Amino acid sequence: MSKEHPSGTSQNTGLIIQPDPGDDRLSAAVSGIDHDGKPVDLRVVTERPLTLFLNRQEIVTMMTIGDHPDLLALGYLINQNMLNPDDPVSGVDYDDDLGVVVVRTEAETQFEEKMKKKVRTSGCAQGTIFGDVIDAFDDVTLADNARLKTSWLQALTKQINTTPSLYLEAGAIHGCVLCQRDKPLVYMEDVGRHNAVDKIAGWMAVNKARPDDKIFYTTGRLTSEMVIKTVMMGIPILVSRSGFTAWGVELARKAGLTLIGRARGKRFIVLAGAERVEFDTAVSSGEDEDERHNRKGAQR
Amino acid sequence: MSKEHPSGTSQNTGLIIQPDPGDDRLSAAVSGIDHDGKPVDLRVVTERPLTLFLNRQEIVTMMTIGDHPDLLALGYLINQNMLNPDDPVSGVDYDDDLGVVVVRTEAETQFEEKMKKKVRTSGCAQGTIFGDVIDAFDDVTLADNARLKTSWLQALTKQINTTPSLYLEAGAIHGCVLCQRDKPLVYMEDVGRHNAVDKIAGWMAVNKARPDDKIFYTTGRLTSEMVIKTVMMGIPILVSRSGFTAWGVELARKAGLTLIGRARGKRFIVLAGAERVEFDTAVSSGEDEDERHNRKGAQR
Repeated sequence: MSKEHPSGTSQNTGLIIQPDPGDDRLSAAVSGIDHDGKPVDLRVVTERPLTLFLNRQEIVTMMTIGDHPDLLALGYLINQNMLNPDDPVSGVDYDDDLGVVVVRTEAETQFEEKMKKKVRTSGCAQGTIFGDVIDAFDDVTLADNARLKTSWLQALTKQINTTPSLYLEAGAIHGCVLCQRDKPLVYMEDVGRHNAVDKIAGWMAVNKARPDDKIFYTTGRLTSEMVIKTVMMGIPILVSRSGFTAWGVELARKAGLTLIGRARGKRFIVLAGAERVEFDTAVSSGEDEDERHNRKGAQR
Repeated sequence: MSKEHPSGTSQNTGLIIQPDPGDDRLSAAVSGIDHDGKPVDLRVVTERPLTLFLNRQEIVTMMTIGDHPDLLALGYLINQNMLNPDDPVSGVDYDDDLGVVVVRTEAETQFEEKMKKKVRTSGCAQGTIFGDVIDAFDDVTLADNARLKTSWLQALTKQINTTPSLYLEAGAIHGCVLCQRDKPLVYMEDVGRHNAVDKIAGWMAVNKARPDDKIFYTTGRLTSEMVIKTVMMGIPILVSRSGFTAWGVELARKAGLTLIGRARGKRFIVLAGAERVEFDTAVSSGEDEDERHNRKGAQR
């Protein structure tokens, strides 16, 4: 059995990792006043700062819901091309009180060397990092033989929308799901869409998961950032229930990524890489989304 | 007449600045394939990298739709507490081909001095900047006597939802609107919610607009970032049609900001600063949102 499918998966959903709406640290009770002037009590998602260090190098302060800080840290560094998935990581230390996570590598990484040079000349290397990611993006080749059946798409959408989640409990949160064929495998949520992606990238690195037979589902918009991260992760198919930007579509076409937007129940639009899509459902067949589970959070 | 209300406002909407869905640079034609395998043509919002310099200091590369780069640059620096609204700006240079915007000040700013010290010790100063913003946040006092009538809220929501916009044209974009009483004044859109806010901050600085009698409306979620930016801008009332995070609510209460979420037609929830809200509409009266203009983009 591969490390991707441990025996301890949930009995109910089949997911290896799923949202935990019952975790008290992830949501809080907040009281308010409604339009009629009456008091209301709500569950609201938490959000806390997490400062990431790569060895002794401070990298960024992220706003996150706070679960899986180790996977978030690893995934962020890998998706930013600051850490190679093969770089030996000697440890990840997390301090909940300080809101600090430190990723330690045995040797100094290539990134730190680059960062040192860069900061001497222009101070903050965010622009350079962006350039590096775009360069790395150009070198990725995605699996040609990956497939997506439209019947899988319907099954995935339905299962994801009905899985208990913080979204259904409290709203105001994004979800990302790593899938294989018609099965969701790893479902992460976060207040920042990019954090949910990075946590999945961290999970894939730790579990040495193959990317070429996976499908990435997100509730968020298909911006350039989302396309770049998916390609950097080596996943050939990206699906969103939300809309897309022109540059997101352009980058997907350049990278040979299959990009699908506005995926809701039976409806969707293929923007790039249509050769991987197999239309195995009858024209305009399939159920529409159940109203109760209709995510209102998605953007056209 | 104050600089805030030039005579050249739009005849149709009364807005000083409004979205320009007809601007070809802001959206592009994209072709795709729908769920029935049929070709579809769509208008999709653009997104492009813009690298910001403060004098010779490279600050950040932002993903933006691309309009008002000068206001975005100024607003970003002000909202990050890197530039004081009173710092004399000698010029803002924008190069469309390079995707670079440079804000020039007569003297070196306090921020650059701090940045130099910081980069020598820890490389990249993002964490410090975050700390600085939180410190500055604690010093802000918001106007006690500001008011929000629930009838204004209904009028604002209706006018904003029916104003021609890139959202209505192409979707996948956030909107922020600076309002006064029941009138929207400045309506900015961007692929990044934070960019739309920053463009309004830039407009306020250039036009020396008073913040204390304004209301800030956003389509995006009320996260800590959004609350911090609104408080930094000195605006006492923040309204969103989307949801909120626990820390966003906590920060709003700490700063004495009036925070209203899930504002859609007649429904809304007041999370903080309810003393500024005047319930002048009958209980559960008022129109529900017109379906045609119902923004699906909002998050609970």
